[in-house]
Amino acid sequence: MPIYVVGAGPGDPRLLTLWAVELLAKADVVAYGDLVPEEIVEKFAPQALRVKIGHKKADHDAAVKALIEEAARGKTVVVLKNGDPTIFGRGIQICKEASRHGVECLVIPGVSAFAAAAALYQLEITDGAELRHVALLSYPHFNAEILASIKADTVVVYMMGDKIAEVLDVAGKICGPAAEVFVCHSVSRGGGCVRLGTTPLADVKKPVLIIIRRCFKQ
Amino acid sequence: MPIYVVGAGPGDPRLLTLWAVELLAKADVVAYGDLVPEEIVEKFAPQALRVKIGHKKADHDAAVKALIEEAARGKTVVVLKNGDPTIFGRGIQICKEASRHGVECLVIPGVSAFAAAAALYQLEITDGAELRHVALLSYPHFNAEILASIKADTVVVYMMGDKIAEVLDVAGKICGPAAEVFVCHSVSRGGGCVRLGTTPLADVKKPVLIIIRRCFKQ
Repeated sequence: MPIYVVGAGPGDPRLLTLWAVELLAKADVVAYGDLVPEEIVEKFAPQALRVKIGHKKADHDAAVKALIEEAARGKTVVVLKNGDPTIFGRGIQICKEASRHGVECLVIPGVSAFAAAAALYQLEITDGAELRHVALLSYPHFNAEILASIKADTVVVYMMGDKIAEVLDVAGKICGPAAEVFVCHSVSRGGGCVRLGTTPLADVKKPVLIIIRRCFKQ
Repeated sequence: MPIYVVGAGPGDPRLLTLWAVELLAKADVVAYGDLVPEEIVEKFAPQALRVKIGHKKADHDAAVKALIEEAARGKTVVVLKNGDPTIFGRGIQICKEASRHGVECLVIPGVSAFAAAAALYQLEITDGAELRHVALLSYPHFNAEILASIKADTVVVYMMGDKIAEVLDVAGKICGPAAEVFVCHSVSRGGGCVRLGTTPLADVKKPVLIIIRRCFKQ
C-alpha cells in the first residue's frame, strides 16, 4: 500500500481537509510528531496503530524507515504532519525515500500555520498595495544576513519558540522604523498574534510564527 | 449573521476543510468567483443562493457591499475564495469593510495553490538545505526589479496565465544558470507542473503558478 504524507493543518480539527479525514479513516498506521494534537488522531483514526515521530533528524529518519517497511508489508500508512507537509515539513523527502524502496507515496497538502494565523487573527500578509509579497523562512536559516537579503514586504519566520528573543533582536537591527513585528502562537488552538511593543510576551507555546511587515519600508 | 470568508482550496473538493463544509452547509448565500469550481458549490451548498463575484475591483467591491447588506439582514453569507483567502485573496479586506458596517466577519483559511502544487506534484519548495526559504509574489507586482531584490531560494509567482511569457522572460534575464523554472496549472484538477525547457507549454489553463528554484544560486 502507499504511504500518505498528509497535512493536518495548524491544530484545530476543523481545519483538516476532507482528503485527510478519508485517509485517516482507512489508515492501519498513523505516524505523527508532537505538534499534531492527539485529539485529531483519536477522533479520525481510532482504528489505527499510533507511532510517534521525533523531530531530530536521526529519530525522524529511523521512524520513516520503519514506516516504509510497514507499507511494503501491505499496511496503509499515514504520516500526519502539522500544517502543510511541503512548507518546512520534509514531506517530499519521505516520498523520495519511499520510492527508493519501491513504495508508492503521495503527499496531501494542508492548511499552513501562516495562512491560518493571517486568516483567523485577520492579520494581513498581502494587501495588493504596501504588502505585495511574502517570504517564508524557518529558524535554522534565519539570521541578520538572510533577513537583509530577503526584501519581502511581509516576512514569516517559522520556529519552535525558544529563540524568539534572538529573532526579534535581528529584526530590530535590520528593519526600519515602519516595521511591525507580531508573535503568533498556538494558532487555531486558542492562541493569537501579539504585536511587539503593545503587550508583554507571556505564555507563548511552541510552535511560534514571527510575522514582520514593512521591515524594508523606506 | 456574520460573513464568512472561506478558503475553498485549489479546486479538488477533497481539499476543502471540514470547517468550510460546515459553513457551506448552513449558508443562505454563497458568493464566489470563476476560479471556484461550480461542483463544490453544488455539492456542499445546494440550498444556498449563488452569487458570482467578478475579479475586477469595482465588480468585487459592489458584490461585497451587497453581501454585507444581506448579512446585516440576518442571512448567513459565505464568500468562497479559491485557495486561501489571505494569500493574494483580499479576504481580510472584506472583513474590514464588513466591520465598518457593523457586520461580524470571520476568515477561514484554506489550502493554498502553491502548497497543493508542491505536495501533489512532489516539487520541493523547501528542503532545509539548498531551498531554505520561499517567496510568494503575484503578477501585478512582478518584474525584473522585484525579482532581483527578493533573493529567496524558491520564488512562486501567482498569476492568471496570460503573461507567462513575460514572467519567464524576466526569470531568464535575472536568474543564473542553476535556475529551475516550472509552470504549474490546473493544480489538483488534472494539471501539473511542467519544467521549462523539458516539455512544450501547451493547453495551460488559468490560474497559473510559476515556481522558480535556485534563481540566485552562485
